[in-house]
This record gives sequence, C-alpha cells and structure tokens, in this order.
Amino acid sequence: MICPVILSGGSGTRLWPLSRQAAPKQFQRLLSERTMIQETAARAMGPAAGGEGFTAPIVVCNERHRFVVAEQMRELGIAGTRIVLEPVGRNSGPAILAAALMVAEEAPETVLWMMAADAAIGDEPALRRAVAVAAAAARAGHVVTFGMTPTAPETGYGYIERGEPLAGIAGAFRVARFVEKPDRPTAEAYLASGGFFWNAGMFVFTAATLIAEFERHAPDVLASVREAVARRTTETDFVRLGADAFTACRTISLDYAVAERSSRNAVVPASLGWSDVGSWAALWELGAKDAAGNVATGRTVLVDARGCYVRGDGTLATVVGLEDVVLVATPDAVLALPRERAQDVKAVLDAIKAGGLDSIPGIV
Amino acid sequence: MICPVILSGGSGTRLWPLSRQAAPKQFQRLLSERTMIQETAARAMGPAAGGEGFTAPIVVCNERHRFVVAEQMRELGIAGTRIVLEPVGRNSGPAILAAALMVAEEAPETVLWMMAADAAIGDEPALRRAVAVAAAAARAGHVVTFGMTPTAPETGYGYIERGEPLAGIAGAFRVARFVEKPDRPTAEAYLASGGFFWNAGMFVFTAATLIAEFERHAPDVLASVREAVARRTTETDFVRLGADAFTACRTISLDYAVAERSSRNAVVPASLGWSDVGSWAALWELGAKDAAGNVATGRTVLVDARGCYVRGDGTLATVVGLEDVVLVATPDAVLALPRERAQDVKAVLDAIKAGGLDSIPGIV
Repeated sequence: MICPVILSGGSGTRLWPLSRQAAPKQFQRLLSERTMIQETAARAMGPAAGGEGFTAPIVVCNERHRFVVAEQMRELGIAGTRIVLEPVGRNSGPAILAAALMVAEEAPETVLWMMAADAAIGDEPALRRAVAVAAAAARAGHVVTFGMTPTAPETGYGYIERGEPLAGIAGAFRVARFVEKPDRPTAEAYLASGGFFWNAGMFVFTAATLIAEFERHAPDVLASVREAVARRTTETDFVRLGADAFTACRTISLDYAVAERSSRNAVVPASLGWSDVGSWAALWELGAKDAAGNVATGRTVLVDARGCYVRGDGTLATVVGLEDVVLVATPDAVLALPRERAQDVKAVLDAIKAGGLDSIPGIV
Repeated sequence: MICPVILSGGSGTRLWPLSRQAAPKQFQRLLSERTMIQETAARAMGPAAGGEGFTAPIVVCNERHRFVVAEQMRELGIAGTRIVLEPVGRNSGPAILAAALMVAEEAPETVLWMMAADAAIGDEPALRRAVAVAAAAARAGHVVTFGMTPTAPETGYGYIERGEPLAGIAGAFRVARFVEKPDRPTAEAYLASGGFFWNAGMFVFTAATLIAEFERHAPDVLASVREAVARRTTETDFVRLGADAFTACRTISLDYAVAERSSRNAVVPASLGWSDVGSWAALWELGAKDAAGNVATGRTVLVDARGCYVRGDGTLATVVGLEDVVLVATPDAVLALPRERAQDVKAVLDAIKAGGLDSIPGIV
C-alpha cells in the first residue's frame, strides 16, 4: 500500500480573483466539476500499475482551511482521510516530514507519495505506471522525484538532469543534478538535449528514508517537527500539530532541505500532461476550445471573440470582439488582461493593497 | 414661468449591463453622483437667462418606474413634481401631448420645455440662454427645437437645416428641413456647410400650440390621448393615464407626428456640449481622463491600461495591459469589448436571449 500525502499549502494568488486567501486555487473547480484537491485525491484511489493499492490520503493544510478540506474529501467519498493542520505555513519540508513522522510511528517502511493539491495531470494511466516505478525505487532506499518530459522551453520551472539508470528498476535513473529556473537559452538547450526534465515537486520515498535524510541534511527541522508531532492533538478528523514547535521551525522546501542535497536521489521521467496550473493562460492551454480558440467556463456570452479565456463564476461574463484576452468575473471582483500578461495578476494584487482596497472583506 | 417636461421613456439597452429594464440609463449615476434624470431636472431649477423661472417639472414615465422617479426627485429636493404614468410606452408624441393637455386645462399658454431624461449637457449657462430664446419663439407660436452645433460628422443623429432668421427673435431661425440620420459623406458635407445641426430631441412650445399641431397633423393621436387624460386618476404624487385609451393610441415620436410636418417650426442653434450618452464609448468621451487616457468609475484598479473605460459598480473591476477597451462590471453581469465596438452591446443582449440566459432574474 502506498500512502498519498497531499500538501495543500498553496495560496494560488496567480489565479485571483477566483482564488482567494480564504479559498485558494486547490479548492476551486478550475478544470472540471471537481476541485483541484479532489482531482488530486481521486488520482490516488484504486490500484497503481502492478496492482498495489493506496491507503486513504493524508492532507496537510492550514488550520483555517480544515473544514473546506474535510467537506471536499467527504464530497469525493473518501473515508479515513487524515487532515493534518499546520498552525502556520512552513513550506513543503516540514509539512511532508510531519506526515512521515506520524506514519513512521506505526510502519516506517510505508511508501509515501507526496503531491501538491493544485496541479493538473492529463494522463492518469501514465501516472499510475510512474508511481509504481517510483515506489520500487523508494523501497530500494531512494528519494524519488518525477521528471516531466518538457514540451516547451519553460523558464518558470526548475529542471532535473537525468543520470545513469538505476540498476534493477526499469524507468528510474539517478539524478545528475537539480537546476533552478533557467533563462530562455538554457531552457532551449535543455529541451533540445532530451536529458532534462521539469521538476513537478512530486516525490516518492519511505517514511524512514525521508526522516533519515532530514537527520543528515536538516537536523534542526527534524527536531522542531518531531516535537510538533509529539505534541499533536487529535479531534475527530483533524490532527493539530504542536503550534509552538511547528512555528519555531524554519520555512524550507523539501527540494532545498533534502532533495538537492541527498546522495540517494532518483528520478522517474514521464510524460503525464502535467501542469502546475500557474496562471489563467495555463487554464486556457488546458481547456477545451471552441472553433475560435476560446475557452469559456460558467455563465458566459462570447460574440466575435478569438483565443479568449472567459469565466463567469456566480455572475455573467460577456465579451465582444476581443482577442487573446482573459476575463474572469466573480460577483465581487473582475479581472481583464491580455492572455500573454497572465503573470501580471500580481501587479493587480499589489495595486489593490497599495490602494487600501484589501479592506473589502474577502477581496484578496 | 416655463414648465419642464421630462420624458423618461428610454430603455438604455446600449449601456447594459449597468442599464437594465428595471432601472434604465436615466436612473443611473453615469456621469456624476446624480443620476441622469436628476441632472436633467436640476437643469430646470433656478431662473433661465432673462430671469424667467421654472415651475416644478412634469415627469412622464412608465408605470413600473414610478417609485424610482419619485425617490430620485425627492433626493434632489424638488417639491411638487407631477409624475405622469404611462401604462405602456407609445414614444414621445403621446407622452408630451398628455402633459400638454393637462397643463392646458389650467393655462394653455404655458411654455413647455420638453427634454429626454437621459442626455448630458456640458454648458448649462448656454442652455439657459438658448431656452430663453426658445421660450420667446414659442410664445410667438412656434414649435421650437434646439440645433446642436455639430462637432463631428455623426451618422447616429438626425439633422436640422437652418432657414431664415425669425423676425424679432435674435438667435432663432426657421427650419429649412429635418433630415434623417445621414450616411458618412452626407454628414461630412453637413458639418462643412455650417447650416446643419444635430436634432437633440429637445423642444419648446406652448401647450396650446402643441395641441393645435396634433389637431392638424395627428388628430387620431390627439383623440386617444385626450381620452386618456380625461380618464386619468390621481394618487398622491402620481397621475395615472386612462389605460385603455392610451394603449389604443399609436406609437409615434413627436418629431414624426408634428415637428417634421409643421409649418410653425423654428430652431435655436447652440453649442451646449450635448450628448445622448448613447454608448459606453460616449461615456468615455465625456469622462475625466487620467494621463493614459483612461476613464475609471467606481471601484477599479488599472495597471498599464491606455484609453480604457473601466467601471466597477458594486464590484471591483481590474484591468492590466489593455488598450481602448471597455470593462463594465456589476455584481451579476460583466461586459468587456473594444471601445470602437461599443455599439455592439446589442449583440450581447441578443445572444443572452438566444441562449435563454434572460431567465436569470433582472439580468437584462
């Protein structure tokens, strides 16, 4: 059995005004009738390739999102989800480590599959095959990441260079190196080489391996999180980590704390149709298009529009004669911008704060 | 004393989604903190040029708008407004005639100043001077219209060709002819000639003159409206016209019923900064612009926008990196389109109806 661990710490500000602090991206119905966290949890139901099954997931989320997580898991019909509540966000390192320590109390050799709650995956059969390979590598003591076969010279992702094949585990490789987000020429060279893959932030390892790696590379983090886990309280579906100890821990990603430092790294390359759904332009890329290349979701009217992403959430969004524009409408906030400037949502949020408009309840 | 008659029959569909059937354009705060009908009524308070004063206005409106009219007049602090309720809209001819018949019961030589409830006028001192000239011509028995000095070769307005000066009334002229909306070359020729003026649909005449002209040119309309006025009922501030008689009347504009046929026409040319505020593009023209040529009203955030009209009414409207675009946001409907396609709002309304979205309460 593989234990899925879903990290639900993202704030998803790049998808404002749909994504808000109170209900970030992972809780939104972005691509289907299911929310992103529901899509994520549903991927870890039923057997992986090879027939190995999954336990109910562990979800690590912020204290204030506990009921929305519980409700969305209930809607999905998943029984037995453990919801681990962080008093504050400390990035992915402490979050996955807390889950590993809890699992290790009972069964330290359990294979954990760590994933973000807010990514899209187009090819689920390929994912299940990749997870089976990764689980085998994890049982051989590796910290296994997935390398997404790049389809474009993306400068927004980190990359993983593949090394030698792992002996005895077809489809898994040593990691030659992790590289930070590259510039455009470097990304083009990576794409051309065939030996570089996008780092999707999805990992597989045993609980024992992860704990040992933290012991070696970030012992202070391990000490803090161990204490937070020891002082946890449990209340119905929720596990509340010890607040003082967890808050005292430093903020660090799993990549930085362990993956980039470990000698036990492995990578499973795969083409999964993966996207971090990091902008409205990404949602346009992923969406079903009409004959004029528009993606329309919710209540919308489009007249003479081309290449637009139009979304009416609880309101009617209408467009005439625009090209390659994003229009996202909610009852209390609306955003319009060129698709190619989708990353500039941040400028809007900055201007909202600068203008004091963030005093409107729930607006950001 | 001049009696202002404000016709509030417009539906203002070209300003959707702000203007709706239940609350059309004239009841909206389009250009200031006052609504259009409040701006209109306020123009007829205080003395005209020459010191002649105005009576409280008569407002002719649809039955279903009676409370919004009454409330908006109350807000303005106008006492004694008579609100005449039409059971159905029959265009401007029957509406002004009903007012004239009521006034004529007491004082048939009263000068009436008829105006639409939803136009903008930039130069109010010039308007007061023009009204004084028109009142003099009206007392001499003329049906007087105002000719707006054209500032562009507009194809969306009718034109009035000026004739000989009226003897003894400086600033007033006979009307050579009324012309329908011209094509572009004709409009350019009109603009160049200096003898053609926009027909703003604003008239001045005595009640007796108007009734006599209807008697001559549209006796069937006079008969129906006379009966509707005879059968009226009065209830607090409201005068309800006889429904059967008024409904039986044909639909006809004052221009078509009388003005274009009368031998007693006169025109007072004037530069009033007049606009019928017939589109979102017109509101952009009229609005105060920032350094990048944007007009922003309500709750808005603009980043790198140029030449845009952005309006957030009860919701926050945000724009990044767009040029010459209109974005109008309300809590339940949003419109985005290029400024130069502002006339295509109708296509959106058609699509809403075609798609059955007009079943959403109040959406159109």
